[in-house]
Amino acid sequence: MHAIADIAIIPLGVGNSLSPYVAVCERVFSDAGLDPQLHANGTNVEGEWDEVMAALRRCHEILHEMGAPRVATNVRLGTRTDKKQSRNDKIASVKSKLDT
Amino acid sequence: MHAIADIAIIPLGVGNSLSPYVAVCERVFSDAGLDPQLHANGTNVEGEWDEVMAALRRCHEILHEMGAPRVATNVRLGTRTDKKQSRNDKIASVKSKLDT
Amino acid sequence: MHAIADIAIIPLGVGNSLSPYVAVCERVFSDAGLDPQLHANGTNVEGEWDEVMAALRRCHEILHEMGAPRVATNVRLGTRTDKKQSRNDKIASVKSKLDT
Amino acid sequence: MHAIADIAIIPLGVGNSLSPYVAVCERVFSDAGLDPQLHANGTNVEGEWDEVMAALRRCHEILHEMGAPRVATNVRLGTRTDKKQSRNDKIASVKSKLDT
Repeated sequence: MHAIADIAIIPLGVGNSLSPYVAVCERVFSDAGLDPQLHANGTNVEGEWDEVMAALRRCHEILHEMGAPRVATNVRLGTRTDKKQSRNDKIASVKSKLDT
Repeated sequence: MHAIADIAIIPLGVGNSLSPYVAVCERVFSDAGLDPQLHANGTNVEGEWDEVMAALRRCHEILHEMGAPRVATNVRLGTRTDKKQSRNDKIASVKSKLDT
Repeated sequence: MHAIADIAIIPLGVGNSLSPYVAVCERVFSDAGLDPQLHANGTNVEGEWDEVMAALRRCHEILHEMGAPRVATNVRLGTRTDKKQSRNDKIASVKSKLDT
Repeated sequence: MHAIADIAIIPLGVGNSLSPYVAVCERVFSDAGLDPQLHANGTNVEGEWDEVMAALRRCHEILHEMGAPRVATNVRLGTRTDKKQSRNDKIASVKSKLDT
């Protein structure tokens, strides 16, 4: 099952500079072949469901190893069976309506 | 790794009555031993990370089998390593501050 | 416009014990007449859109005043025009499918 | 209070092609001066809290006027008082850690 996911990871108990932690997760997602696309409130990834979830688990584990006593994540997950649709397809679909 | 998760599943393309789909997911979570606690905007579950994620995947699969061409889910996930904390502990911790 | 909302507020830069901050927000929601229902990953509220949003803003403001340099919130918002539906209606609708 | 928000709006009861609705919201955010940045699972906006919230309300209202009986939105909201930080600052902060 193909999944498009948007992941916002917040390590708690490490102060208020989260970028070093987010950067580590970016690498985890890249190494997993999920082509992470960073935006201001999260990271988009795309791949097989199990690979997305394994990478997300790895992020939590690494952030705990880096010293975060708590990790709180918000994930938006989308799957569909009616057609193949990539992230770029989704964005292009909206943009085509904007141009008209 | 123990996880507390709050899951809001929205099947798309099935009209605007979602309760039959949510009910199916409740059963999936119950069968997985995750003790689902339904609220007005989602369901709380608690268990081992992999079991939570396997149940969530099962929900997506079943909703697709029931005819939903798309399924969009929002998940809040929490893990912590500094102490064992159940969902009831979390709620009790807030409530104790309310009483004071 | 009536809104049902589920709000998870995370103050950052204040350590990893969040319950004092969540408790303050509970009081803000109560004082606003939004009948907050606390669960393990957030708080359900219900009321007029503008009142819900004003209370949410008040929470952010108070948490900053309490010393949190950053506040990150996840909100699930639902509105509907086809019928009046309270939070209890939503939950009852799912539960009726579970019993059958 | 300055806010950075990431908004994922799902109209229900309108089939499974959501892009016309998302496009309308993009225009609402643009017209409000919130500089929407579309990604595969939502739209990033940035501006004064009240302006962000007014635009979000306007989206719900318009989607209902377009025929959606229900609208479900997930919003990630961030405010901070320790420093001025734009969306580009946030992204640049993570990317600088990736390059090292």
